[in-house]
Amino acid sequence: MNFSMIVYILGWILNFEALFMIIPLAAAILFRDNTILSILLTMGICAAIGLPITRKKPKESTLHSRDGYVIVSLSWITLSAFGALPFVFSGAIPNYIDALFETVSGFTTTGASILSNVEAVPRSLLIWRSFTHWVGGMGVLVFIMAFLPLSGGQNMHIMKAESPGPSVSKLVPRIKTTALLLYAIYFVLTAIEFILLLFGGMTVFDALNTSFATAGTGGFSVKNNGLAAYSETVRAIVTVFMILFSLNFNIYFLIFSKKFKDAFRVSEIWYYLAIISAATGFITFNIKGMFPSTRDAFGNAIFTVSSIISSTGFTAVDFNLWPEISRTILVLLMFIGACAGSTGGGIKVYRIVILFKSMGKELHTLIHPKQVKKIRIDSHEIEHEVIRSVNVFMVCFILVFVISLLCISFEDYDMVTNFTAVATTINNIGPGLELVGPTSNFAFFSPFSKLVLIFDMLAGRLELFPMLLLFAPVTWKK
Amino acid sequence: MNFSMIVYILGWILNFEALFMIIPLAAAILFRDNTILSILLTMGICAAIGLPITRKKPKESTLHSRDGYVIVSLSWITLSAFGALPFVFSGAIPNYIDALFETVSGFTTTGASILSNVEAVPRSLLIWRSFTHWVGGMGVLVFIMAFLPLSGGQNMHIMKAESPGPSVSKLVPRIKTTALLLYAIYFVLTAIEFILLLFGGMTVFDALNTSFATAGTGGFSVKNNGLAAYSETVRAIVTVFMILFSLNFNIYFLIFSKKFKDAFRVSEIWYYLAIISAATGFITFNIKGMFPSTRDAFGNAIFTVSSIISSTGFTAVDFNLWPEISRTILVLLMFIGACAGSTGGGIKVYRIVILFKSMGKELHTLIHPKQVKKIRIDSHEIEHEVIRSVNVFMVCFILVFVISLLCISFEDYDMVTNFTAVATTINNIGPGLELVGPTSNFAFFSPFSKLVLIFDMLAGRLELFPMLLLFAPVTWKK
Repeated sequence: MNFSMIVYILGWILNFEALFMIIPLAAAILFRDNTILSILLTMGICAAIGLPITRKKPKESTLHSRDGYVIVSLSWITLSAFGALPFVFSGAIPNYIDALFETVSGFTTTGASILSNVEAVPRSLLIWRSFTHWVGGMGVLVFIMAFLPLSGGQNMHIMKAESPGPSVSKLVPRIKTTALLLYAIYFVLTAIEFILLLFGGMTVFDALNTSFATAGTGGFSVKNNGLAAYSETVRAIVTVFMILFSLNFNIYFLIFSKKFKDAFRVSEIWYYLAIISAATGFITFNIKGMFPSTRDAFGNAIFTVSSIISSTGFTAVDFNLWPEISRTILVLLMFIGACAGSTGGGIKVYRIVILFKSMGKELHTLIHPKQVKKIRIDSHEIEHEVIRSVNVFMVCFILVFVISLLCISFEDYDMVTNFTAVATTINNIGPGLELVGPTSNFAFFSPFSKLVLIFDMLAGRLELFPMLLLFAPVTWKK
Repeated sequence: MNFSMIVYILGWILNFEALFMIIPLAAAILFRDNTILSILLTMGICAAIGLPITRKKPKESTLHSRDGYVIVSLSWITLSAFGALPFVFSGAIPNYIDALFETVSGFTTTGASILSNVEAVPRSLLIWRSFTHWVGGMGVLVFIMAFLPLSGGQNMHIMKAESPGPSVSKLVPRIKTTALLLYAIYFVLTAIEFILLLFGGMTVFDALNTSFATAGTGGFSVKNNGLAAYSETVRAIVTVFMILFSLNFNIYFLIFSKKFKDAFRVSEIWYYLAIISAATGFITFNIKGMFPSTRDAFGNAIFTVSSIISSTGFTAVDFNLWPEISRTILVLLMFIGACAGSTGGGIKVYRIVILFKSMGKELHTLIHPKQVKKIRIDSHEIEHEVIRSVNVFMVCFILVFVISLLCISFEDYDMVTNFTAVATTINNIGPGLELVGPTSNFAFFSPFSKLVLIFDMLAGRLELFPMLLLFAPVTWKK
């Protein structure tokens, strides 16, 4: 284990965190919030620790896989641990565990909140909260790697450990170029949404927050009643962008390179859109009677379906009150999640497609034991290694899910609350059902349960392995 | 597809069903139930179809894997479809779908019932109901294969398709000998339980029914309040036998062959007993306050834990009222299930152990990419094929589970009812939580939902593949 390099990179994380906080600081000055001191203090703490550490790069800079995993998990924990401080210092969220929950929920783009009155929080801190979504959506280390002077091989282990999907980082040969390109796409899409939301009648403040939260598929809102506070036009714009940000970013690169035909051939996206259409159609039909018109029902259905499957978690309607079949479909969508290589969470459509195809292949083999069949997606043969890693991911997912469910069941809330609380945090969505439904929040959980859910959010965002390996003896053995 | 052989074997299934019904017929005569005609009529129908079909063995007797799967699924469907007739003819269960549900629940050793007043059912039919557990526990085709004059290779495809676990049929070289040996062990264990229950104060009728239901890990009871109707001694005996019948039958063979050391080395059994002990200990502690003494709490905990994990499903206490953490543990035990090579259901401890070990191995590989590590259980190396088949099983399991859950969610009952109804049927247990809890039954579901749950019971008992392949186009393609 290369401890000096790990500490060195964590130092950079703190430096960047201090930098990131210029945004809430500017907002605090602009809005004359009395949070200026709290933000400055946090920036000072981050810089006071980060700057001395990063003054000299360690001589031995070789990183192995295990260093990559440890760096990624500790970076995200560090980022959240210090990012929570302004909430505590300002008194907006006096309890540190609560502030940590909110910040982890931000960086992991979950959007589950412990705030019952969001509108009482100073606007500078709301901007910070939304900005954590934007930073976390693309990945913090991808960002830092684009600036840090590390060699390609070093980057690789870190990028591989943080990468949000199985197919990112194949766009262009150089990782640094990839990172910059991804951020460019991300920035432009966010800007377009921001401008459209202004046209839709939002204030600059609300549009900025909402764009940050959509881009990261986060879901924090600055209104107590979420997106219900805005016009139908705004919700339509947000619906479109929730879907856009949850598509595989490869297609934007392909479109950018004018390879339109290739962009259209990415089958994961068609599967994803097919699932959204089917779920929306079905739910519209199912909830029709609860709304004045089918058009209303459709609007609420497509907004909610896109919000859940993209793992954004914006709410505009209390879907907890919908019929059981619609609720069950929504829970299912939570697990499916977005496309690989997007800012979204969940198991990912790509993995689901691989699982289905390998199941079909194996059933075929039972009938024709002598035929060898290969799985293909987009005319690429899927290698055995990929199938195995998907299977391992599923087993780890079930394991983390079950242990978390047991841990939070100690509190004796109902099973649907517990089940969807874990589902919505591990899949980085936000709202669940019953006590954690769209109209409520996570404040009532005990500190222990909150820590469990914090772990789940981080595990979900980092696709399990970095967080699991942090606690695995094999990682720390000589 | 060898249709003539499929029909030929289904004919034998009907012949044997007519034979099996001698037991309820004898009971009907003994108890002077007015079910004699109903049973005779069913026997007549079975024989009238079965005997002409089986008069001549088809010339072309070669069976391929696909024939094996189709024979197994159709045999179980046939057996249940005709086995339900006495309930309908006698008026005990006038609705055919209900009678089919009850019979499938019997043969698949599930024990989920649609009867609200079991004690009103004629005793001859109660014996038939319990006897279906006993027949289904070991497997119908294993039994028939021991008598039918088929060559070894033919048997193999059928046995493989029906086999309840991954490790049965390796006991002795000849399949027929294996089948007879397994039945001998089964018969002797059942007889011992029967005798002990008589000593425990049960009537002959109750002891016979309870022994049949325990042996098959079925769970049908002849009392409205289940095992609560009997003494603590009876429940203790039943607890022990629920565990014994859910152990890998290999160990009985090893003990029988005086290979005591080898019997002690079957690690699956130790894992299984460890899970039972941990769950019992924890639940005892958790429910202590609900019972007059810790001893009472322990008795109820160990009975319920053994009943659920062994997939028997006998009830003696309303565990639906237990604290959420105990309920959650019980739901978890439903999925874990019994040992492979036992009469029990569920995912099976063997598969869970393989999944965990392969997860550990893969996490190890992430840290040390160049080391090749193998998984071992009981000092055997687990072949890659086995791991892959476990993974495919899990994917199929999740798929069947999710689709079933969606199908029965149409009825708008609560999510815990729906979830546990599917869990308890696909894992062949019996009771679930909430509306399908220990004090209620499955009568309230619509005929459509009942058909879905019937499919789940059969799919669970046959370990998914035969039932899935019955509906897969590849099975029927030339």
